[in-house]
Amino acid sequence: MADHQKGPSGEDALIARYFKPLATDPGAFGLLDDAAALDARGEDVVVTTDAVVEGVHYLEGDPPDSIARKALRVNLSDLAAKGATPAGFVLTLALRGAEASWLAEFARGLEEDAGAFGCPLLGGDTVSTPGPVMISITAFGRAPRGTMVHRSGATPGDRIMVTGTIGDATLGLDVLKGGATAAALAGDSAARDYLIGRYRVPQPRNALALAVRGHASATMDVSDGLAGDLAKLCAASGVSAVVDAPCIPISDAARAVLAREAAGIPRLLSGGDDYEILCAVPEARVARFSEAARIAGVALTAIGRVIAGTAAPRFLDADGAEIALQRLSYSHF
Amino acid sequence: MADHQKGPSGEDALIARYFKPLATDPGAFGLLDDAAALDARGEDVVVTTDAVVEGVHYLEGDPPDSIARKALRVNLSDLAAKGATPAGFVLTLALRGAEASWLAEFARGLEEDAGAFGCPLLGGDTVSTPGPVMISITAFGRAPRGTMVHRSGATPGDRIMVTGTIGDATLGLDVLKGGATAAALAGDSAARDYLIGRYRVPQPRNALALAVRGHASATMDVSDGLAGDLAKLCAASGVSAVVDAPCIPISDAARAVLAREAAGIPRLLSGGDDYEILCAVPEARVARFSEAARIAGVALTAIGRVIAGTAAPRFLDADGAEIALQRLSYSHF
Repeated sequence: MADHQKGPSGEDALIARYFKPLATDPGAFGLLDDAAALDARGEDVVVTTDAVVEGVHYLEGDPPDSIARKALRVNLSDLAAKGATPAGFVLTLALRGAEASWLAEFARGLEEDAGAFGCPLLGGDTVSTPGPVMISITAFGRAPRGTMVHRSGATPGDRIMVTGTIGDATLGLDVLKGGATAAALAGDSAARDYLIGRYRVPQPRNALALAVRGHASATMDVSDGLAGDLAKLCAASGVSAVVDAPCIPISDAARAVLAREAAGIPRLLSGGDDYEILCAVPEARVARFSEAARIAGVALTAIGRVIAGTAAPRFLDADGAEIALQRLSYSHF
Repeated sequence: MADHQKGPSGEDALIARYFKPLATDPGAFGLLDDAAALDARGEDVVVTTDAVVEGVHYLEGDPPDSIARKALRVNLSDLAAKGATPAGFVLTLALRGAEASWLAEFARGLEEDAGAFGCPLLGGDTVSTPGPVMISITAFGRAPRGTMVHRSGATPGDRIMVTGTIGDATLGLDVLKGGATAAALAGDSAARDYLIGRYRVPQPRNALALAVRGHASATMDVSDGLAGDLAKLCAASGVSAVVDAPCIPISDAARAVLAREAAGIPRLLSGGDDYEILCAVPEARVARFSEAARIAGVALTAIGRVIAGTAAPRFLDADGAEIALQRLSYSHF
């Protein structure tokens, strides 16, 4: 009778070694049970799920800790946009093998972010796959009953606002792939690193969640490209929008790429992976929302206005001319 | 400007066409938002997640509707074992492409099961992958606060009970792979089909969930093999167990395979994919639990007893001799 008869299986040992330290919520039962129990405290449990796939959402050689952070943060970003406070997550990890060094770094990144965002691991499933690594996370947030902010709800006259800067991540991916952005920034490693960082490790705006709940009429996070995601928000709200493109917040690094004509505005508007909050805010609430963002330390910029109609949102340049977009956003199919 | 500028992306169209009909819970917001809201009604939200991978948990040529059913049912089985009532699920679908015929069958199977088990779709994520198809489901159940049944809780003297029959699925997989089981049942297509069906479409015992909550001291579902899963339950409870192997419920089809010596009892005890409920039940509650199972139409069999100690559970044959098990269960790593 071999040792493995009485000892834990490879799968159980993997979970105990790498992921048990993340299971800090009592409802996780130390990851020793088949399910977790989320105490809802009479609130709504807001649920979101997002997966990242090797070669699609991240590159094979990316640091394991950044892969873990991205997998969790893309979900945290959804919770932030919905005005929900993080409560925990479950993790499905499909691996080709169980390389200890990769797993240790992955778990470390996940643990740090779970702690930093107050979103502990509640459970999960580890499976083997012959294909690319895939990390699927379902995250839970809490919001007082009925207060989750929807994509619908924007009305004509509302300001359109966005956090952070737009277009960095798609340029960061271009740097990693050795594209035109890499050449344009050949002499500027700080700018390259900044853009790569924006691609690999999104900065979800959870600090703004309460203000979003208090002031926004409609929200979503920008994950597939600002242009396409704004179109989705408008469609869900039954409205249209006009955006002043020169108002869209662009980082210095991205500005340098634009200046060297390695990418144009349309690329920034339709690139994915921004993970910023896009929202519509009634005019009367813009000042208070902006003040809340300032206190939370989150950059927030008004970029346009909701208008009546069902046409696709228009993006205008400094001369008021419409910017032609070949595609609005990234689509998997 | 191309059509796709204003129309939905391929991904959105895929979701709208195939999965929107499954989003029957108001908290799903028609799958048109970034998150769902689960109204907890002051109960605990029980959360479980399980993934199935093409070539690992099912075979490439398996009917798409059965793949969908299996993906949902392995999660429903966890909810049943924990004594929770299904409330909904989120779906992550990693596809190589979006073949309409495959998706239509997949969605049909998922819709039928979601309806039959009262577990509507709440949201999800569809991503492309160059690798095998993977379906990751996180399912939610409700239970009155603090009543979820754990793996821990079994005490010496408790009966060990199991639903349904054990070992069918591993034999069904062997039939599909053209193994010894296929040869042994060459003249019996009904038996082959029965075993294949048990592998492809588990029968989660959700009808027994309330009785489990009311009577069992410890439970889990048998997913990786009865021997290994009983060892996990005993370890979590700090007890050991003795099982009378001749009492273990075996289907007629599996019995025929045993009779032809194409498989032995150890294979049935360590094969995975049973998705039956394994539980410890205090002696004083066995009669009432059995009666509840009879009313629910779920076969329930006493197979052994919890004893003090920390040794691995022992399986005894008709002569009282211990059955040697080379391995206890399936492990991915």
